[in-house]
Amino acid sequence: MLTTFGESHGTAIGGVLDGFPSGIELDLDLIQSEINRRNPAKYPFATARKEDDKLEVLSGIYEGLSTGAPIAFIVYNHDHRPEDYDNLKDLYRPSHADFTYEARYGIRDPRGGGRASARTTLSVVAGGAFAKQLLALNKIIITGYVSQIGPHSLPTGFVLADRSLVKLSPLACPHEKTTQKILDYLHTLKEEGDTAGGVISCVIKGVPAGIGDPLFGKLQADLAKAMLSINSVKGFEYGLGFASARMKGSEYNDEFILEDNLIKTKTNHDGGIQGGISNGMDITFNVAFKPISTLSMEQQTINRDGDQIIYKAEGRHDVCVVPRAVPIVEAMAALVLADKLGQG
Amino acid sequence: MLTTFGESHGTAIGGVLDGFPSGIELDLDLIQSEINRRNPAKYPFATARKEDDKLEVLSGIYEGLSTGAPIAFIVYNHDHRPEDYDNLKDLYRPSHADFTYEARYGIRDPRGGGRASARTTLSVVAGGAFAKQLLALNKIIITGYVSQIGPHSLPTGFVLADRSLVKLSPLACPHEKTTQKILDYLHTLKEEGDTAGGVISCVIKGVPAGIGDPLFGKLQADLAKAMLSINSVKGFEYGLGFASARMKGSEYNDEFILEDNLIKTKTNHDGGIQGGISNGMDITFNVAFKPISTLSMEQQTINRDGDQIIYKAEGRHDVCVVPRAVPIVEAMAALVLADKLGQG
Amino acid sequence: MLTTFGESHGTAIGGVLDGFPSGIELDLDLIQSEINRRNPAKYPFATARKEDDKLEVLSGIYEGLSTGAPIAFIVYNHDHRPEDYDNLKDLYRPSHADFTYEARYGIRDPRGGGRASARTTLSVVAGGAFAKQLLALNKIIITGYVSQIGPHSLPTGFVLADRSLVKLSPLACPHEKTTQKILDYLHTLKEEGDTAGGVISCVIKGVPAGIGDPLFGKLQADLAKAMLSINSVKGFEYGLGFASARMKGSEYNDEFILEDNLIKTKTNHDGGIQGGISNGMDITFNVAFKPISTLSMEQQTINRDGDQIIYKAEGRHDVCVVPRAVPIVEAMAALVLADKLGQG
Amino acid sequence: MLTTFGESHGTAIGGVLDGFPSGIELDLDLIQSEINRRNPAKYPFATARKEDDKLEVLSGIYEGLSTGAPIAFIVYNHDHRPEDYDNLKDLYRPSHADFTYEARYGIRDPRGGGRASARTTLSVVAGGAFAKQLLALNKIIITGYVSQIGPHSLPTGFVLADRSLVKLSPLACPHEKTTQKILDYLHTLKEEGDTAGGVISCVIKGVPAGIGDPLFGKLQADLAKAMLSINSVKGFEYGLGFASARMKGSEYNDEFILEDNLIKTKTNHDGGIQGGISNGMDITFNVAFKPISTLSMEQQTINRDGDQIIYKAEGRHDVCVVPRAVPIVEAMAALVLADKLGQG
Repeated sequence: MLTTFGESHGTAIGGVLDGFPSGIELDLDLIQSEINRRNPAKYPFATARKEDDKLEVLSGIYEGLSTGAPIAFIVYNHDHRPEDYDNLKDLYRPSHADFTYEARYGIRDPRGGGRASARTTLSVVAGGAFAKQLLALNKIIITGYVSQIGPHSLPTGFVLADRSLVKLSPLACPHEKTTQKILDYLHTLKEEGDTAGGVISCVIKGVPAGIGDPLFGKLQADLAKAMLSINSVKGFEYGLGFASARMKGSEYNDEFILEDNLIKTKTNHDGGIQGGISNGMDITFNVAFKPISTLSMEQQTINRDGDQIIYKAEGRHDVCVVPRAVPIVEAMAALVLADKLGQG
Repeated sequence: MLTTFGESHGTAIGGVLDGFPSGIELDLDLIQSEINRRNPAKYPFATARKEDDKLEVLSGIYEGLSTGAPIAFIVYNHDHRPEDYDNLKDLYRPSHADFTYEARYGIRDPRGGGRASARTTLSVVAGGAFAKQLLALNKIIITGYVSQIGPHSLPTGFVLADRSLVKLSPLACPHEKTTQKILDYLHTLKEEGDTAGGVISCVIKGVPAGIGDPLFGKLQADLAKAMLSINSVKGFEYGLGFASARMKGSEYNDEFILEDNLIKTKTNHDGGIQGGISNGMDITFNVAFKPISTLSMEQQTINRDGDQIIYKAEGRHDVCVVPRAVPIVEAMAALVLADKLGQG
Repeated sequence: MLTTFGESHGTAIGGVLDGFPSGIELDLDLIQSEINRRNPAKYPFATARKEDDKLEVLSGIYEGLSTGAPIAFIVYNHDHRPEDYDNLKDLYRPSHADFTYEARYGIRDPRGGGRASARTTLSVVAGGAFAKQLLALNKIIITGYVSQIGPHSLPTGFVLADRSLVKLSPLACPHEKTTQKILDYLHTLKEEGDTAGGVISCVIKGVPAGIGDPLFGKLQADLAKAMLSINSVKGFEYGLGFASARMKGSEYNDEFILEDNLIKTKTNHDGGIQGGISNGMDITFNVAFKPISTLSMEQQTINRDGDQIIYKAEGRHDVCVVPRAVPIVEAMAALVLADKLGQG
Repeated sequence: MLTTFGESHGTAIGGVLDGFPSGIELDLDLIQSEINRRNPAKYPFATARKEDDKLEVLSGIYEGLSTGAPIAFIVYNHDHRPEDYDNLKDLYRPSHADFTYEARYGIRDPRGGGRASARTTLSVVAGGAFAKQLLALNKIIITGYVSQIGPHSLPTGFVLADRSLVKLSPLACPHEKTTQKILDYLHTLKEEGDTAGGVISCVIKGVPAGIGDPLFGKLQADLAKAMLSINSVKGFEYGLGFASARMKGSEYNDEFILEDNLIKTKTNHDGGIQGGISNGMDITFNVAFKPISTLSMEQQTINRDGDQIIYKAEGRHDVCVVPRAVPIVEAMAALVLADKLGQG
């Protein structure tokens, strides 16, 4: 179980991973490289904030092995400029959490969105990177990729045959032509000061049959909760998802077959989960992201006193966060699966 | 918090509602009527199983008021015919949970799907009916309705202006022409022995701003988990959901305005939740259901020994469960909101 | 995990056992016999309330085996006479929970103490009886016994060599002379209309080394919480407990030794747990019970309006509940251990 | 809810306090001073380890007020000398957690006991110090004190009339003569290389009636669990505790009275809790500590290979940890009460 803490422009961001099994050899460089995957410096069209995001592990590891004690980790914030946000502290930015945090807490930390900032997902990526190493020992591999940004999607019927294609794209989109179309699209948006959303698809290979619980611990339910916990996510579907709503049972149903003496399904419309429990097929799901709320153009809004105000974000901001969110989706999935596997 | 128990053809189905506040006047007839809403006898194209589904409350209520003690309730199963399922006990029905339950538990109760049966949602509806009475005291009203079955959807831009329209439709679809098209469609499917899925939309009015928690307790995340816990559900989206992925920020963003001295948003693309916390606008979400897995036509599958088998379900079965699932979606939403409100 | 429900004079008492492993052969007669152990009819000096306490299992078992689904069970109340309690409904009985329940809930069920009644422990005994069968498969045996009632204790240095001695005593006290002294003592109290408390000791054999967690999941901490959840319990100690406070480290410390190629400790002052984790030695603990609060003699107290009142309980009541609480202590210990074993 | 992390000789010790209310003005100097109370430098007969124990708050506070976001805090370890423990890494020290940690985790961090070290209680004291500030706003004051060390106890019938007496004693024992006797006793033990245990008593003033839950959330049960989670604790009792086991109901029962228009009890044998819920009287409890396991004299034990070994701890160690544990007991009580109050 992961507990996280930290605000965008506070002292540090971090987390505590409790219940991590003992005796696992941990490669901290690999964990650092996962964190780097969400670093804006890696992406075109990302914020100009500069953080080295150096992970420091404080506990739970002794001579390279997990001890079973809680693993705590932190990343100190360096490029925090709280003063940049002084003019925002009374403002309710459109589609941000400024107003709701005030409604919830009566107070808010205006520095870069405070706890509501996407920077807090760094803790999730770090925690998930530990979970991934545990899953890798069980030969479970999670691959997320961008399947849509704005109006541009992967070709219909696209199947990810080779996960290395994801790394080739600067946008984590495993299809060259689509990548190019999206790059052009984001260029135009950037010039307009506008932003884009998109969809991340994820496939998990190697999950054995029998993981998950009926009713209140369904595997897809825990995945859905995890994904909807990510900033800007508006939807989750697994297997054929919303498309299944228009199908007939006779088109949809996954027939069981015997293949190489293993029980499989002929199709995988169910996305690897039936009755809340994995069936041994690939687990597949999609996650929808709304466009980034911070625009580099003028927007109408109001402040705490109800005065109407024109707001335009200063500085350079992300045009699209979806490529940077791929490691977050993977990390969340890894945390869910590690928890489920640990339940026995 | 609701704990549930029971199998399709076991002795009884029921639940325990813990943490329900004291001193709440409870109308048990209203709760019974909610349970009746999911009873197949109320719907065309539903299973012929006959159960009176009479709720018995065992504890937690004294002289009509909740006492703060756990509220336990049961519904005895009457029309259970375990012998009907003898021929299924070695079979893995396509897209059912037969195989995964065996993988998880090494054993399975073959009587009507056992714990995996949709009959277990009766406990959710009952528990949710208690939660609804609590919410009603807070002027929170939840309305679910069918917005799509198979290829037939509500007209684009449909807004539910009057919740009484839902009750007028035998399919809980608040639009007469769409209802008629769906009835025709289901008729055809029934003759073919086929089944349909669909989408349920839900709108929650009256939730004050400030409900929900950041990060791991986001309101939409708890709603997503609850909805994905319902049998046959394949997807969840709130606000504009998956459609937001193709929009620009300048089209999407919800501008804050002052209206009647209340802070509102001009549009409600965010679906009433920002940063995981309600903003006082209507909460809106959609839930996708796959078609029913049990077909009245022949399907290929295998049994435990890997033998290929032709399976055809006997008796009368649901053609489409989506209309009956409306009270389940509402109940799950009510349970989530009651929990969140109780946190303080 | 056990969820329970029910009030002293409500419709039924029961519980739901969630997470019980599948494929376990369950002997329901044995579970019924555990329930009978706390039935007042079995004990001298107990209440005259007559209940057959017939357990009905509603779910989770198929053809004699647990299926992994929640196991729900109920016992209907028969001898409930709510009218007996009409004169109590405004009264705050000394050392009862009448006043605190009202302070907590603003309302109370006056019928026999409602949810505060010791009758609710029946659910614990039933749930624990399931857990015991699971533990028995792991060769873990829990034995509780009365070591003190009022001023009469087992002889100093008493060790329970043979658990069958417990059953020989009508008071679950494995020492004939002490049993006799206590019987005489309770006789006198009964004539006076007075009541007694006592101490239950418990020894758990067969727990392997390595069960429990550091810090917030210490085995003794979970045992302490479980025991302090039992009605009338005022204290918990394990190993040498409070007596250790006056010892020197050199007297107290348990030296490790090798015996039959197994690592053991020479003494067992730590009571089988070190650092929150079992060490393979017998787990030993004591639980202190205050005297029963309901006296058959006049007591001063006040009512809701603050009026001073003389209160004398009518009918026949327990003089001492400690012997009947032995199965409750064992059941709570079984539930804790079954949970801990399941985590691993 | 407090999550903690850290080992005796790891990089840092710390914790994350989740669910702390927003808008609370926090005095970090006061929190530091609570931490200093358990610093060995403050006590005679304590370990010579030198740590400044400087608390660093990483998140959750903005301009001196809690924001509702998780409050993370760390204390870096400075005087860690892992090499001191090289000779212990194969050894099972008597009555330590060396053996059980290995049984649980297959691995152990031998540096000063690792996660099993009492140094980890620093996180509890820090977390509790935040909780105390919350409680102080509700006028709830927790006072722990030493009531026994070795064979020397406070006089029978002692009542803590003035909490300032605790601070006057170098041993947190609010009775001068007893303090002196204990000092002499500890002097002798130190010369012998031996150690002592003791009892901490605690009184909580200002808890309103109605805090706590029946059955599985009883206030005393949560206190018991918290206290038994502290290193070296062997027992917990509240109110009259184990002494009540020998009393008659007529001697024990707390009669309700009206005093200054408030409902109180004439005596407080129940220790402020009835039926698991506070009754508005002082909450009183005792916690028993075994003597410190690390002796400065030779002890027999074995190593991992089962070889018999003579072990003598090097360096200076605590003779008695009980006075230093007073802030830990208070902190645990504060965390329990803050949680309970927040449920409301």
